[in-house]
Amino acid sequence: MCVRVDDLGERKLIEILQKFVADNGVLGFGDDASAFKIAGKMVVINTDMLVKKTDVPKEMSPFQIGQRLVVMCLSDIVAKGATPKLLLAAFGIPPEYEVEEFLEIIRGISQTSEKYGVKYVGGDLNTASDLIISGTAIGIAEKALIKRDGAKVGDILCVTGPFGLTGAGFKIILENAETPKSLQETFINAVFSPKIRPKLGLMLAESGTVSACIDSSDGLAWSIHELSKASQIGFEITNLETIIPKEVFIFAKKNHIDPYELALYGGEEFELVLTVPKERLEKAIKIAEKSGEILTPIGKAIPEKNIFLKKGEKKITIKPQGYEHLKTK
Amino acid sequence: MCVRVDDLGERKLIEILQKFVADNGVLGFGDDASAFKIAGKMVVINTDMLVKKTDVPKEMSPFQIGQRLVVMCLSDIVAKGATPKLLLAAFGIPPEYEVEEFLEIIRGISQTSEKYGVKYVGGDLNTASDLIISGTAIGIAEKALIKRDGAKVGDILCVTGPFGLTGAGFKIILENAETPKSLQETFINAVFSPKIRPKLGLMLAESGTVSACIDSSDGLAWSIHELSKASQIGFEITNLETIIPKEVFIFAKKNHIDPYELALYGGEEFELVLTVPKERLEKAIKIAEKSGEILTPIGKAIPEKNIFLKKGEKKITIKPQGYEHLKTK
Repeated sequence: MCVRVDDLGERKLIEILQKFVADNGVLGFGDDASAFKIAGKMVVINTDMLVKKTDVPKEMSPFQIGQRLVVMCLSDIVAKGATPKLLLAAFGIPPEYEVEEFLEIIRGISQTSEKYGVKYVGGDLNTASDLIISGTAIGIAEKALIKRDGAKVGDILCVTGPFGLTGAGFKIILENAETPKSLQETFINAVFSPKIRPKLGLMLAESGTVSACIDSSDGLAWSIHELSKASQIGFEITNLETIIPKEVFIFAKKNHIDPYELALYGGEEFELVLTVPKERLEKAIKIAEKSGEILTPIGKAIPEKNIFLKKGEKKITIKPQGYEHLKTK
Repeated sequence: MCVRVDDLGERKLIEILQKFVADNGVLGFGDDASAFKIAGKMVVINTDMLVKKTDVPKEMSPFQIGQRLVVMCLSDIVAKGATPKLLLAAFGIPPEYEVEEFLEIIRGISQTSEKYGVKYVGGDLNTASDLIISGTAIGIAEKALIKRDGAKVGDILCVTGPFGLTGAGFKIILENAETPKSLQETFINAVFSPKIRPKLGLMLAESGTVSACIDSSDGLAWSIHELSKASQIGFEITNLETIIPKEVFIFAKKNHIDPYELALYGGEEFELVLTVPKERLEKAIKIAEKSGEILTPIGKAIPEKNIFLKKGEKKITIKPQGYEHLKTK
């Protein structure tokens, strides 16, 4: 009997892959991106593939597809404390695809790159049976990169933005969940026009206040588990509610869903999930304020390698769930 | 009426794309790769997508698919005079794909990377309806890069290897052309196990003997036309027969095909097509000999922007033909 890739799934395959890849000495295989050192600087590279059939809700416009590609590629560069500089995009396009739609994707890529100070310099064009775009982002850091494995017991777990909006958005788009009309746009926008915070990422990185960092594209719960696994510590989340917008609570109540679940398992948020040594927390929060953003502490690193959520008097164990490619069974 | 991408084809689309991409000041949009300068060095990046349905003959083994990906990605880095260093690969895989075949591709990528001194450091895994691999290669150059636009009238046109073997190979694989059994392996190997010459590329680049360079993956005729277009000159090819192996002449005769056409339009050779100022030709040829390779002059740059082939007494105009993606009509 032959074993199919979907018998194993993306994460198991990545585990197997590990023995075939070379250690580059800068960022480990399991980290958000790859990197190398050149003349005292760090060059960070990240490649991410967008497959229309599995990654793009049908309501997403071609411009938003381009925007989404840029954001997902840059997000990992930002999470390592580097400044994104260049973007390349290799396309697989169905022959019958409309030129105008293709150009809208290109406009999305070009304008979003420009917005983040990144040069979209080209790539590759091919025929394929489904629309597939593989982006490669390159960033530069003057200082050491922020890895996933630097968190220590006692470090404070922080995030750079709200969580739960995309979770609600996906429920509306994919499951037709009910929502007050006045809130619909907020949720849908969170899914269709994701944002990254390169300025905040860079300022935090350069301040030396961050001990470990990851982006949250696979969902908050998954990201926290990855930090935990890489740093060999656990986390106790004590005030998740502070990063859940009131709109999410309203939506959750209307649909009888747990708002905490929306925040933990929504995914596609592209925020930073990071740890800060206790004595540098005040400095880190001030840096965020200075750049007009908010850094919110939500818990702390503990010795037990598990993720706990304190919800009133209850203490719940958070499972490492998140979207997984190639796992259809 | 809407316009489909295959109404325009890859090259017209690339032309349109040009106005959406940013000028990076190092290598132009039309060149083989992208690049940026950092601390006095050049970092060269190239992304290339391999689509199983259109790019991979069904007889190609999974290991050879991996090998092919590495060669096609590194080839453009070498053509710019840089040393390839890192490789990333983003996969789109059908869920039913066999794990063992997938690992064979990975072995092909890993072992071929190692062979060329390149670190395969990771990438991305996704579900897709067809097997698609998007590779990104990164190289470093200590000196200025070799562009496509540096050829001057009088420069000598040279190539680094034989041409025509893949042309014969494709005729055998795709059209069941007849071939003496003793030669079959040579032709098939040329298609299924392509090679690059990174050492020669680097030595030529560092010697300062090369004025313009391109890789020949789209076919010799196409590559010469690209050099011509970028450098605003033409070429007269005077001794094409010197780079056509005798096996190709035998095959061509047996199948009543023009051996020159096999050499000009075969494609997938991954050799270097370059120009050398006349006074540096001797030096360039000696450099090639020193690294155990052969650099063969086949013609010279002329003011008229056209490509001529001298064949005995006849002078034939060479058309810019080569494989084009997204051109099905």
